[in-house]
Amino acid sequence: MLNFSFHNPTRIVFGKGQLQELDTLVPSDARVLVTYGGGSAKRTGVLDRVKRELAKSGRVVFEFGGVEPNPQFATLMKAVEIVRKENVDFLLAVGGGSVMDGVKFIALAARPGEFMGRELELLKPGRPQVPVDTALPLGTVVTLPATGSEMNCGAVISNGEDKVVIKSPLVFPRFSILDPELTFTLPEKQVANGVVDTFVHVVEQYMTYPVEGRLQDRFAEGILHTLIEVGGKTINEPADYDARANLVWCATMGLNGLIGAGAPQDWATHMISHELTALHGVPHGRGLAAILPGVWRVRKEQKGAKLLQYAERIWNIVDGSDDERIEQAILKTEEFFHGLGVKTRLSDLGIGEEHFDAIVASLEKHGMTALSERGDMTPEVSRQVLQASR
Amino acid sequence: MLNFSFHNPTRIVFGKGQLQELDTLVPSDARVLVTYGGGSAKRTGVLDRVKRELAKSGRVVFEFGGVEPNPQFATLMKAVEIVRKENVDFLLAVGGGSVMDGVKFIALAARPGEFMGRELELLKPGRPQVPVDTALPLGTVVTLPATGSEMNCGAVISNGEDKVVIKSPLVFPRFSILDPELTFTLPEKQVANGVVDTFVHVVEQYMTYPVEGRLQDRFAEGILHTLIEVGGKTINEPADYDARANLVWCATMGLNGLIGAGAPQDWATHMISHELTALHGVPHGRGLAAILPGVWRVRKEQKGAKLLQYAERIWNIVDGSDDERIEQAILKTEEFFHGLGVKTRLSDLGIGEEHFDAIVASLEKHGMTALSERGDMTPEVSRQVLQASR
Repeated sequence: MLNFSFHNPTRIVFGKGQLQELDTLVPSDARVLVTYGGGSAKRTGVLDRVKRELAKSGRVVFEFGGVEPNPQFATLMKAVEIVRKENVDFLLAVGGGSVMDGVKFIALAARPGEFMGRELELLKPGRPQVPVDTALPLGTVVTLPATGSEMNCGAVISNGEDKVVIKSPLVFPRFSILDPELTFTLPEKQVANGVVDTFVHVVEQYMTYPVEGRLQDRFAEGILHTLIEVGGKTINEPADYDARANLVWCATMGLNGLIGAGAPQDWATHMISHELTALHGVPHGRGLAAILPGVWRVRKEQKGAKLLQYAERIWNIVDGSDDERIEQAILKTEEFFHGLGVKTRLSDLGIGEEHFDAIVASLEKHGMTALSERGDMTPEVSRQVLQASR
Repeated sequence: MLNFSFHNPTRIVFGKGQLQELDTLVPSDARVLVTYGGGSAKRTGVLDRVKRELAKSGRVVFEFGGVEPNPQFATLMKAVEIVRKENVDFLLAVGGGSVMDGVKFIALAARPGEFMGRELELLKPGRPQVPVDTALPLGTVVTLPATGSEMNCGAVISNGEDKVVIKSPLVFPRFSILDPELTFTLPEKQVANGVVDTFVHVVEQYMTYPVEGRLQDRFAEGILHTLIEVGGKTINEPADYDARANLVWCATMGLNGLIGAGAPQDWATHMISHELTALHGVPHGRGLAAILPGVWRVRKEQKGAKLLQYAERIWNIVDGSDDERIEQAILKTEEFFHGLGVKTRLSDLGIGEEHFDAIVASLEKHGMTALSERGDMTPEVSRQVLQASR
């Protein structure tokens, strides 16, 4: 097991009707900016319920809607202006990963200080930690289970075609309200993308090489088993509370730092897929599903021991040569994605070989030249992955 | 899945050589009371290493040794006096569950205020939450993996023959250093007790009735699998780093609130076993091993669905009637304990039927008259458990 440090101070308030805890969780004298996305929070009535809860104490509430999927720097800076102008002192995200990520950026950028006017520096690629020492406190009300942003301190922010991962312990949400019922109205496709996103978050922290992190492996496998059990059901029966509750909790536990603590991590699938989103507008979950099988096929030597463990423990595959079992496990994974209505080929996304040069060039531009758990995945290997994902 | 709230702000610093992080983790101007147990921290040199780390900045360090297993109120009050006299403002526990639990009590009792002179009120039985609003900050250096106290806010404190569970979010450790190498010198028996203690912590939160907490079940099963894999090895090869590291991490994850969040909880085995410790001086782990099989046999109807799930997922038992599979699973569990050198009968502990009246009376005295996940376990049922555990 690798050495690690684990610290996650976010309070999770989970279950039916938990929205009513908002009045307890947000300081009663706060000046709150409620941030949301494209309008579904309004249509479904969640936004009104949030405002009713906040109104129970003497809070001043401002609103900022219109945070797009893959939230853009330019959009978020408009919210930063409101925060500064209105002296907002608490941020509340109502939405999915994009809104939560966006609010984390706002929390870091909005404080007056060295970054005023230079907020773009927060997005300098390759910066592991944002060098600011304060952030506004934030909370979240989750309406889309997928990114795990509700219980971690990372965010993915776009600036034009650049997607940048930022991380700071300052932006762990103070609380996140996870009421599975708030997600019942989601379109099928978004739920499916959430299942895939969570699945891939888990395997990015699992499908590497063995380090005797036995408990970490078991926890990761536990999330995968659960996703496989509930994934189809929660898409087809969106109002089945228990299936959705398990998906929501899987999404949170898949990327809150726990299963990756003490384990090597990959993230190559994410990095390549980010370029598909930036260059071709591919939804995050769809990009992941198209790239993952290619990564596993190209990297089956480096990942062999864990692929075989996965084959046996997740899919009960014990017969055949190593290569055969690995290929069977990859096929089973693709079948699982297909069963959710998610395709697993770049051609399904309309991305042909003629685009591979540009994708690889974009990886290089973003410094993604030594990917994967051992840092040995060069742009040439990424190109092989694209080839294998045609 | 049941509604839940989960919040665990303890920072875990895990791995080889992590003791050197102490200087970063403890405030540099702190007046620190280092608390330890019967002297093994001194003998093994851990205490000296701790003091060397603390001396790297200008801290004033006091010592309090001699916290006994099942720490006594009277002993801890001596430490409280030192804290008050010397204006100690940070508490550091170096040891196992007893020392950590003891320090949590000290943290709550030592603050001047309404409780001065009335500290015994903190131990009023049946009080779910200690009604104080401040506590001294504390950290831990763990030398015995078992109780999970390093990442939770509970403590078990004894006052004579009374064992009382206290809980307060104020006493989550600020940090816990878990270096598996610090535990290599532990006697075999204590390691075995730690394996059993962790195992029973997990099943207290798992072996109840199904609530569609699929992920919680998987996580609990993951800990059980890991304990079964590494338990014997880490006793027989105490310096095998990876086996011990997995035990240490299992012990922490077994009782940090995660696997029980959203799930019903039992704790009857613990409550009965606390009486064995109080009345007969039985080590905690040994008492648990003697009571657990009896609880499962007497409560096999109430726990049937989960016992069958456990039989299949943990022990691969799929043939036979329900009763047969359940009995096989219980026998397998007993075999596992025996393999660790831990007996599973009250007679092995020298406790005959003639003591059962007193044990049941003690449960009644402590208000333990409606135990278990449904509160339907009367003293009469506890007596049946004792009978089944002869």
